Amino acid sequence: MEEDVQFELTKEFLEKFRQGIVSQNTDFIISSLENIPAADITLLLHNFNADESKYVIDQLDVVIGAEIIIDLDEDVRERFISEFSSSEIAKFVNTLDSDDAVDLLSGLPLKEREEVLAEIDDSEKEAHILDLLRYDDDSAGGLMAKELIKANVNWNVVQCIEEIRRQGEKVSKIHAVYVVDNNDTLLGRVSLRRIILSEDNVKIADIYEDNVVSVETFVDDEEVASMMQRYNLEAVPVVNVHGKLLGRITIDDIVDVITETAEEERQLMTGISADVEEKDSVWMLTKARLPWLVIGIVGGLVSAEFIKFFEEDLARIVAIAFFIPLIQATGGNVGIQSSSIVVQSLASPSVFEHGMTKRLFKVLLVSLLNGVVLALLVFGSNLLFGGTANLSIVVSIALFSVVVIASLVGTITPLILDKFEINPALASGPFITTTNDIIGLAIYFFVIHLLL
Amino acid sequence: MEEDVQFELTKEFLEKFRQGIVSQNTDFIISSLENIPAADITLLLHNFNADESKYVIDQLDVVIGAEIIIDLDEDVRERFISEFSSSEIAKFVNTLDSDDAVDLLSGLPLKEREEVLAEIDDSEKEAHILDLLRYDDDSAGGLMAKELIKANVNWNVVQCIEEIRRQGEKVSKIHAVYVVDNNDTLLGRVSLRRIILSEDNVKIADIYEDNVVSVETFVDDEEVASMMQRYNLEAVPVVNVHGKLLGRITIDDIVDVITETAEEERQLMTGISADVEEKDSVWMLTKARLPWLVIGIVGGLVSAEFIKFFEEDLARIVAIAFFIPLIQATGGNVGIQSSSIVVQSLASPSVFEHGMTKRLFKVLLVSLLNGVVLALLVFGSNLLFGGTANLSIVVSIALFSVVVIASLVGTITPLILDKFEINPALASGPFITTTNDIIGLAIYFFVIHLLL
Repeated sequence: MEEDVQFELTKEFLEKFRQGIVSQNTDFIISSLENIPAADITLLLHNFNADESKYVIDQLDVVIGAEIIIDLDEDVRERFISEFSSSEIAKFVNTLDSDDAVDLLSGLPLKEREEVLAEIDDSEKEAHILDLLRYDDDSAGGLMAKELIKANVNWNVVQCIEEIRRQGEKVSKIHAVYVVDNNDTLLGRVSLRRIILSEDNVKIADIYEDNVVSVETFVDDEEVASMMQRYNLEAVPVVNVHGKLLGRITIDDIVDVITETAEEERQLMTGISADVEEKDSVWMLTKARLPWLVIGIVGGLVSAEFIKFFEEDLARIVAIAFFIPLIQATGGNVGIQSSSIVVQSLASPSVFEHGMTKRLFKVLLVSLLNGVVLALLVFGSNLLFGGTANLSIVVSIALFSVVVIASLVGTITPLILDKFEINPALASGPFITTTNDIIGLAIYFFVIHLLL
Repeated sequence: MEEDVQFELTKEFLEKFRQGIVSQNTDFIISSLENIPAADITLLLHNFNADESKYVIDQLDVVIGAEIIIDLDEDVRERFISEFSSSEIAKFVNTLDSDDAVDLLSGLPLKEREEVLAEIDDSEKEAHILDLLRYDDDSAGGLMAKELIKANVNWNVVQCIEEIRRQGEKVSKIHAVYVVDNNDTLLGRVSLRRIILSEDNVKIADIYEDNVVSVETFVDDEEVASMMQRYNLEAVPVVNVHGKLLGRITIDDIVDVITETAEEERQLMTGISADVEEKDSVWMLTKARLPWLVIGIVGGLVSAEFIKFFEEDLARIVAIAFFIPLIQATGGNVGIQSSSIVVQSLASPSVFEHGMTKRLFKVLLVSLLNGVVLALLVFGSNLLFGGTANLSIVVSIALFSVVVIASLVGTITPLILDKFEINPALASGPFITTTNDIIGLAIYFFVIHLLL
């Protein structure tokens, strides 16, 4: 009896396992992976190359093998799966739920996909997969699995239990039985608990809940995620435009959507233009990073041209140059902070009651407060470090203006992006930061030009 | 029969509802909120003040009222709950699961908390709550609910169904029945499907799964989240150090942990030091933003002092100042990109196989490529816009050096933070960005001083 299956990957085990692979010690490999969850085997296999990993998977039960392959990141899976023949892949597909099967198949070249489909022995599963392949990856249709337990509203409990017995093997996680009419239109759901606690001859019609949240196939995956989060759902049925029950989405898929959305947002914010990871090739990484760096460079060159206009002022008072970094950094920091706060509240709709005016007024107040404190700080420290009173005053006035204006720009930009249905997180990214930098410099040099 | 309960909040409805509140039209309020999920009522009430919201909740079923209150953000809830008397709060607590009840109670002043506890009519629930109050908010113990279905391994299916009947009312979401021995030590679980499909006299001992992932009470909530994500769990049992079953954590609580973690990370990255939202007071918002801005200012002042050393160079060639923004912005952008990629791979352990050397070598390659492209771009455009060849060469050399060094700093910093168990996302935040800015400037001025 094993009571705790958490698995610690030690260096010693790794070494022993590597020897097991080299010496093709099948018994050792099978016995040492017994009772270890597929997710942990996946982690373990990340330490081996594709050949070695395939050898290990070949020794394991096909169900575990399929779980491991589905567990891999999409890009790793696409490369790895080319190690397997079509009939080997078909064996994995046979054990997977339709949504996972489709994820696996959509990474295959078209010819191989057809070969795999031809070898699927369960015609219902094949039909499920063909149906799912036509939906967008990031829609409710693309997320749903076809496997679910469906009961006709006219049945009684015993018929329903019969159906669970019939379908139960195919449906890995049952949250509830969905109730439909004779046209397969979704009417509601019955929890398994309710079924357990009801007498055999009770009518489904008398025990089902009719207020059930459902989504249509075309709904965006992030919308499904926020809906399941809002209503605390563990599964949601998917229907077509006529309300016909087509599939269901479970919360574990949604957790992945939430994680990916957060990652995408971070990439937008840090200026990485494609979905790259550290393990990708040097070329991929360079390609993903260059576009945003070039935008920053163009911004820097524009700044250089801009400062050129004030060459005379600079030649007259070299100390003007000392404070360029201060002005620029503060403008950038204030802008990112402001947009970040707006992006956050756009993500949770509870503040929609505030109108634009009220919102901006508040931002103005906060920025006035911040601006005064920072300007005084800089003024004091400039005097302390032997700056002239004149320049110190001008720098502080410019800094104050930069704080106020960068706050407003940082607040308005994500709101405008959101209006045009562009991801507002972009406002914390390099493009807007670069714009803020230039605005900050412009303010600084205009103030200097006017007052010095 | 309602088939689609999604709720659209229209301006017209809002206006009618507002009138309903003003005229205290109880019937209208009750009938218009019938069949609307609590989460939607919560959204609706965000348009009204505390008094009005309390009036609405008073008209609703206490179960719905409790759900609405639990749905609120922690800080809003703490303010709002002060509208209710201790005995009103006790009524809500009576309908809530123990984990939600504890969340509600921990927002109350100690005296009121005692008053509420004294009014709880279910002594088992009171014991549950008292037990849960002692765990840290962000530990497995703080996340778990005490409500679960527990079956002794020596029972048969019919005894188990009896227990589900007895406990079922109290446990809102049942994923499985947990199986324990006579000392309440967790042995495994039986799915509800298995119970439905088994004959009444079958022994639990013969049908339960014994390889079950569990967590101990002290495990950090983010670790629980990543574990449930890794193993695709919908619920996980919580045990004490002796393996005794104490409670369970469900995936909906984990979804909240994941969302909050992503939000915290964004705040670290954008330099907002406390957990603030747009709706917080001007004072709170200012306080949360100032510390990071001051760090940026100090960085700017250090830069100013630094540039002062090169005053003579600047006086000689004013054009040096033109490129300060370019150098600084590029250093910042490169640093953030690099640290973001490392932070991302620290979050998913699949790349741990790479040693530090291999990692840095790859970063070096990427940065050399990026650096060459950007340096050539700047060199060309400088010549094009009439810069001197000398200065153009020097700027490009400096830029190249900044790209390479900022990449390395951006890569190493999160790795070091992680070693010291500090959140590596901090490396994309203002403190490190400020450091990168200064390093970038230093490189620029040293190169200029040496070569011009």
